[in-house]
Amino acid sequence: MCPARVEARDKSGRGFVIPIGGAEERVEDPVILQRFVDLCGGSDARIVIIPTASQLDETGPNYEQVFRDLGAGNAVSLPINTRDEARQDDHLKTLLQANGIFITGGNQLRLSTILGGTPIAQAIRRQNATGVHVAGTSAGAAIMPEHMIAGGAKGALPTAQGVKFAPGLGLLNKVIIDQHFSQRNRLGRLLSAVSYNPFASGLGICENTAAFIGPDDVLEVVGAGSITVIDPSELAHSSMAEATGKESLTLLGIKMHILSQGATYNISTREAQSAVS
Amino acid sequence: MCPARVEARDKSGRGFVIPIGGAEERVEDPVILQRFVDLCGGSDARIVIIPTASQLDETGPNYEQVFRDLGAGNAVSLPINTRDEARQDDHLKTLLQANGIFITGGNQLRLSTILGGTPIAQAIRRQNATGVHVAGTSAGAAIMPEHMIAGGAKGALPTAQGVKFAPGLGLLNKVIIDQHFSQRNRLGRLLSAVSYNPFASGLGICENTAAFIGPDDVLEVVGAGSITVIDPSELAHSSMAEATGKESLTLLGIKMHILSQGATYNISTREAQSAVS
Repeated sequence: MCPARVEARDKSGRGFVIPIGGAEERVEDPVILQRFVDLCGGSDARIVIIPTASQLDETGPNYEQVFRDLGAGNAVSLPINTRDEARQDDHLKTLLQANGIFITGGNQLRLSTILGGTPIAQAIRRQNATGVHVAGTSAGAAIMPEHMIAGGAKGALPTAQGVKFAPGLGLLNKVIIDQHFSQRNRLGRLLSAVSYNPFASGLGICENTAAFIGPDDVLEVVGAGSITVIDPSELAHSSMAEATGKESLTLLGIKMHILSQGATYNISTREAQSAVS
Repeated sequence: MCPARVEARDKSGRGFVIPIGGAEERVEDPVILQRFVDLCGGSDARIVIIPTASQLDETGPNYEQVFRDLGAGNAVSLPINTRDEARQDDHLKTLLQANGIFITGGNQLRLSTILGGTPIAQAIRRQNATGVHVAGTSAGAAIMPEHMIAGGAKGALPTAQGVKFAPGLGLLNKVIIDQHFSQRNRLGRLLSAVSYNPFASGLGICENTAAFIGPDDVLEVVGAGSITVIDPSELAHSSMAEATGKESLTLLGIKMHILSQGATYNISTREAQSAVS
């Protein structure tokens, strides 16, 4: 929770990656956004907002105001709604001056189809690799990993048709992210996602909850809800290869952690710790 | 699936315990009830139905007809709706002649409040211990363990108020059973249940799905849906002792299996196997 601790972790040059489960509190007790602003330096923060997932014109300007109210020295949104706009030099210049990037909610397929392969997408990855913090909420969280959940079925059980993937931004390759997790009953699609290829952990992030993933690969939970971590590294059997349609898969040996505020999970070593220990 | 295999397992003197997740198919492809009837000997079956959980007069007679249609030599229901009726000698005599007992759905608190401590409850336990098979659906499945889930919240996350226990029939003490599992979104309350005291495995049984638990403690999945097994034996941390209200618990190191038709789980050794292996 304390910024000092955050700084102490910042051993490598990469910035934080901060997926948020959607519906984060912006006015009363906005712990997630406040921590993001503080991480970016407070009055020294230069936050660039990517509102492309949203089709509402006010989304970008609204977040500009929110971040300024939280003490950010500078916050500006890039009105990118087409691939042409994603290639405009002035947008790229603005982005390259950021020390924090915030990707709003909406439809993650707008993010992948409009930004994918453009200088903006490349710049977000490069900026993050050199120390710029990237936060995203809802669709903006879904887009972060290499393998993005583009859609899927509601429910508690994994099925062969339970999840649809699309290539994401590639800021992370050790996790697959789902959001609005308990609110929209998405355990089944996250289990489906990890059961295709158990190399990655699944993160099911509740609304108003964020994973602050540091450059040391340690994720810390911030916010009012929980993060459900699905660790398939000890998966003994997945029936995904033989399964069809909506019948439930057989999965043996899934490991699960339910993490709340302050708990941590190392996305490399897959070690979980509670807040008190 | 084959009765021969079932018989081969029947090493000790105990009968099968067969919790069903509710809404089992009774007419078209009634695999669960058919297997129960076959296990009880088909034309030699003497099935006694306990319809006490239900407040509908036709529940008992309906099941009598179902079991006869499936080839049971004898099927009779005991119209027990009060504690006085649970002490009637003729009901006890009928029960003691059964080689299969079936507990219907309804409200599990009717089962515990009406049958608890009566000769009927004692006889069900004694009969099962000496070889009589006991099946129960929905409320009839919930009542089977020593620790019964009496109610709880809907949702994917465990909370301090997520589950209400009551003492159950005590046919099983190594598992806690929930039913209508994926249909009613009950993962959270099953996680809440096992996190109080991780000595037992949690079984989340879907509708039209049954756990055939043999005298060797091996559970086999029969039916169209899945059983979600929660194995908390490696639980590293539960915040249940400090948690309050509806905030989600922190749980570290939960193991989970999703089992479909033919898969097995040993409720003693906690080993899971898929149907194919």
